[in-house]
Amino acid sequence: MSEKKKTTIVLFSGEYDKAMASYIIANGAAAYDHEVTIFHTFWGLNALRKNEPVSLKKGFMEKMFGKMMPRGVDKMGLSKMNYLGMGPKMIKGVMKKHNAMTLPQLVEMAQEQDVKLIACTMTMDLLGLQKEELLDDIVYAGVAAYIGEAEEGNVNLFI
Amino acid sequence: MSEKKKTTIVLFSGEYDKAMASYIIANGAAAYDHEVTIFHTFWGLNALRKNEPVSLKKGFMEKMFGKMMPRGVDKMGLSKMNYLGMGPKMIKGVMKKHNAMTLPQLVEMAQEQDVKLIACTMTMDLLGLQKEELLDDIVYAGVAAYIGEAEEGNVNLFI
Amino acid sequence: MSEKKKTTIVLFSGEYDKAMASYIIANGAAAYDHEVTIFHTFWGLNALRKNEPVSLKKGFMEKMFGKMMPRGVDKMGLSKMNYLGMGPKMIKGVMKKHNAMTLPQLVEMAQEQDVKLIACTMTMDLLGLQKEELLDDIVYAGVAAYIGEAEEGNVNLFI
Repeated sequence: MSEKKKTTIVLFSGEYDKAMASYIIANGAAAYDHEVTIFHTFWGLNALRKNEPVSLKKGFMEKMFGKMMPRGVDKMGLSKMNYLGMGPKMIKGVMKKHNAMTLPQLVEMAQEQDVKLIACTMTMDLLGLQKEELLDDIVYAGVAAYIGEAEEGNVNLFI
Repeated sequence: MSEKKKTTIVLFSGEYDKAMASYIIANGAAAYDHEVTIFHTFWGLNALRKNEPVSLKKGFMEKMFGKMMPRGVDKMGLSKMNYLGMGPKMIKGVMKKHNAMTLPQLVEMAQEQDVKLIACTMTMDLLGLQKEELLDDIVYAGVAAYIGEAEEGNVNLFI
Repeated sequence: MSEKKKTTIVLFSGEYDKAMASYIIANGAAAYDHEVTIFHTFWGLNALRKNEPVSLKKGFMEKMFGKMMPRGVDKMGLSKMNYLGMGPKMIKGVMKKHNAMTLPQLVEMAQEQDVKLIACTMTMDLLGLQKEELLDDIVYAGVAAYIGEAEEGNVNLFI
């Protein structure tokens, strides 16, 4: 029953632009003194992957998913105008020109601002992702934890 | 003015993974004793279609849409990594392996938990879908009904 | 601290069907006497572009984005079944047949109902869009303004 306002975001999508929007809103809300939670599920889990491959024992399906999905935010495509990867390069180009924060910087800033980053354990299982592959200081939880947070939320978004 | 918490979801998207996320959140919220409504509009209406074709008189456009859209949740593609249908097979494969509930089972569970499933009548008209083609025990309503529910909602999502 | 209920929508997507859903919900909420805000960011900014080209000095990247993105709502594609532009024609065909409002009409109606249309200045910069290219009576603001509105919202959606 804290007095703080609360923002929760379900990050379901695995695209660079949508992850960027999520982290910009999360950081904005944190700057406004909201308690902020991002619940990463399905393709959104890729935003939490480390850049470098981690060697782990996995089944065939899990290996396939692991190979096909982008490893970390920097490898994600765009939801529009992806053009075989040219879109993300253009976006990163203009971001650099405008001194906008990159997605890895936005994730780091969120962690510094104590945004709670949750990885959905059910979809980690489905996609064969293991804790060793994800960033440090992540909370592992399921949909019940999300409902618990969102029902107290002032702003709840699904991205 | 019930004391129950309330969750509403607009299911706009017609993909297997997004419909799954919607029904997992809906069932989770219902388990937490929320009143839950899913408002199916545009491509999300396909989640409510019966598996078998229903013979009905339709205009040309309506027939075209009817043929091109997936008949029921089991025929939907994925929002990412669809790979001409291989993605959904992989997902269903790992779900089976992990004993996760399939989408038809999640829809059934939602109905058992009294989640209110609304079909948007305006987009049914546009896409030429008729009541005979949709599951039983569906509520038929328009955007006004959605606003009425959502303005009392604790958690409102658009998926 | 007005007594009015409040609806906010982040329109991130650049597709005809998703913009339509946003403006239908916005107009519905306004009819129910909600204060309504649509915050247009990333590809959603294209919903605010004028039909005709506006001649402006731009850098190379900005010109590229300007050319590749749809100029106004009438040129947007669909999120599903786009089929190289056939989908939007079909949708517009059935909308005409059913006397449904077109997207430009929905935008106009929103402006008449005092729905606040905000253009996200940060993404305008990134995509090289300038005020001269957008509709009149638009509010220009950043994510802080969005958070300020959404934290008072009864219905907050990300589309």
